[in-house]
Amino acid sequence: MHEFNLIHKYFTWDNPPADIAIAVGDDAAVLDIPADKQLVTSIDTLISGVHFPENTLPSSIAHKALAVNLSDLAAMGATPKWFTLALTLPEIDEAWLNSFSKGLKTLAHEHHCFLIGGDTTRGPLNISIQVMGLVDTGKALLRSGAKLGDKIYVTGTLGDGAAGLKNLNGELEGEFKLSKTDAKYCQQRLDNPTPRIIESRLIKSFATSCIDVSDGLLQDLSHILEASQVGATLNLSHLPFSSALRNLDNNLATNLALKGGDDYELLFTIPAIKETQFLSQLSNTMNGKVDNKVTCIGEITKEDTGIRDNAGNRLISSGYNHFHV
Amino acid sequence: MHEFNLIHKYFTWDNPPADIAIAVGDDAAVLDIPADKQLVTSIDTLISGVHFPENTLPSSIAHKALAVNLSDLAAMGATPKWFTLALTLPEIDEAWLNSFSKGLKTLAHEHHCFLIGGDTTRGPLNISIQVMGLVDTGKALLRSGAKLGDKIYVTGTLGDGAAGLKNLNGELEGEFKLSKTDAKYCQQRLDNPTPRIIESRLIKSFATSCIDVSDGLLQDLSHILEASQVGATLNLSHLPFSSALRNLDNNLATNLALKGGDDYELLFTIPAIKETQFLSQLSNTMNGKVDNKVTCIGEITKEDTGIRDNAGNRLISSGYNHFHV
Repeated sequence: MHEFNLIHKYFTWDNPPADIAIAVGDDAAVLDIPADKQLVTSIDTLISGVHFPENTLPSSIAHKALAVNLSDLAAMGATPKWFTLALTLPEIDEAWLNSFSKGLKTLAHEHHCFLIGGDTTRGPLNISIQVMGLVDTGKALLRSGAKLGDKIYVTGTLGDGAAGLKNLNGELEGEFKLSKTDAKYCQQRLDNPTPRIIESRLIKSFATSCIDVSDGLLQDLSHILEASQVGATLNLSHLPFSSALRNLDNNLATNLALKGGDDYELLFTIPAIKETQFLSQLSNTMNGKVDNKVTCIGEITKEDTGIRDNAGNRLISSGYNHFHV
Repeated sequence: MHEFNLIHKYFTWDNPPADIAIAVGDDAAVLDIPADKQLVTSIDTLISGVHFPENTLPSSIAHKALAVNLSDLAAMGATPKWFTLALTLPEIDEAWLNSFSKGLKTLAHEHHCFLIGGDTTRGPLNISIQVMGLVDTGKALLRSGAKLGDKIYVTGTLGDGAAGLKNLNGELEGEFKLSKTDAKYCQQRLDNPTPRIIESRLIKSFATSCIDVSDGLLQDLSHILEASQVGATLNLSHLPFSSALRNLDNNLATNLALKGGDDYELLFTIPAIKETQFLSQLSNTMNGKVDNKVTCIGEITKEDTGIRDNAGNRLISSGYNHFHV
């Protein structure tokens, strides 16, 4: 099968929404942006062996490549609309492409985010997705609005992805060994992170700042603190752990939560005065689903305190650094 | 120097234009789109050894990576506004980054196109740029509007980049050897293509269809013909050649023009009735600059004729196929 037709088959989607004036098939895509909205856009690259283990299923690679981008939109309070895919492949492998495109389509459809074009080239595996979303003008959720006394919240649970990666690398042995069930759960969290788009819709009405946890809680919290010129106290005993992490040594679990990457939960700040209303609305929206929970893990303090636990000990950031918006 | 700071130094630009509400430094960029405009966007990946020779200067790699994207906007009649960069690098090399960022900045500033973010990762060299531009709503220049009797035009000259590549690969020897001056010129055209943004501004008021010549004249013309459901006659003796290509064997030059890639000229169709006015306005706009010339190379015919020369011989397309918008 001719390469062009093959790619066309997997990455030209039917029934583009009406706001796509021109999709795949011309020199560029043409998109309608409503007058009262701003465009929100982010690009992330995934490399085999760096951002996902080499034997990851193609469908999970696709899921993750789109999920990490959707997570950036969630952190901005933006509604996903469109994305492009720059895919570099060592060879044309129909089974790989079939699985990859299925993973991509499933997550994209779930969030009504449409593939509007891309570029496929031959070379070492490299996946860049640029996602585009919309936000009411002036209403984007930034890192810079956290205020003294705000409560620090996080969605879901922390450290699962990092535990999954450590387990895969054979670093969880002996007393730290995960049960089969727990290992499977952490692996799933590593391979198929959930972008918190639904939670973001509610959070954006209450939060003063927001970021997604991709590089570790301390690292990402420090971005909020720097942008907002504030400090933070974390209540380490309140860090939300999955059942798998609760089965681990608590010190290890805490470290994974603080410094491990790949959580893709939302970390955000809520004024204390709005807390009750926020939690009550969240509970109505989520119908009590456990995996959509949020947890208060601390409070915003003065800038010169840095990040401390509630015994006053300074917690040092050591996440994984890379440049991205 | 810390990787994060290094990247920050090279890819965080000062003085963002006012239409960038949020640039680098949050989870995503936030952009203002005027109410009467549509967003036009395209992504292209460049791989070492595929899209540029391995020993290409980093500044030229950057130039080309942005130029091929700007060329897509030119082909749509869109005004460049912003771009993102997904850069995968085998190592942090300050000299390389310095040259690369200079090449990028020079071309970007020339076209008032601002870097709004990106992602840098470690791995085999891979450069994806997504460019975003604006067009008056409903006025994008498509591939699909060519009509029977329209004149087929092309900007600049054809085949230079392909000659430069062949020369570099040692495929132009003996009677086909380029002079030093001609070789240097073709190399320059291969490494530093000019996106036809200025020409596009005028062309869009007259043209019924447009595409940029990236995969070879026949290949790209066939995209217009397919989208417009028409055929074409080409006058091969009118193909525009640089002085370097006129010094080559004419058969070879013609082949390079028809089937070689990397021209990044605009190929477009003009209704015969508007031809005089178009040429007169172009001449006023360009002040007779030789490198901004356009040339009529043929005419649109009925669909069932395919692409033929003016003796009626069918010309077969065999460009380089890859999937992109």
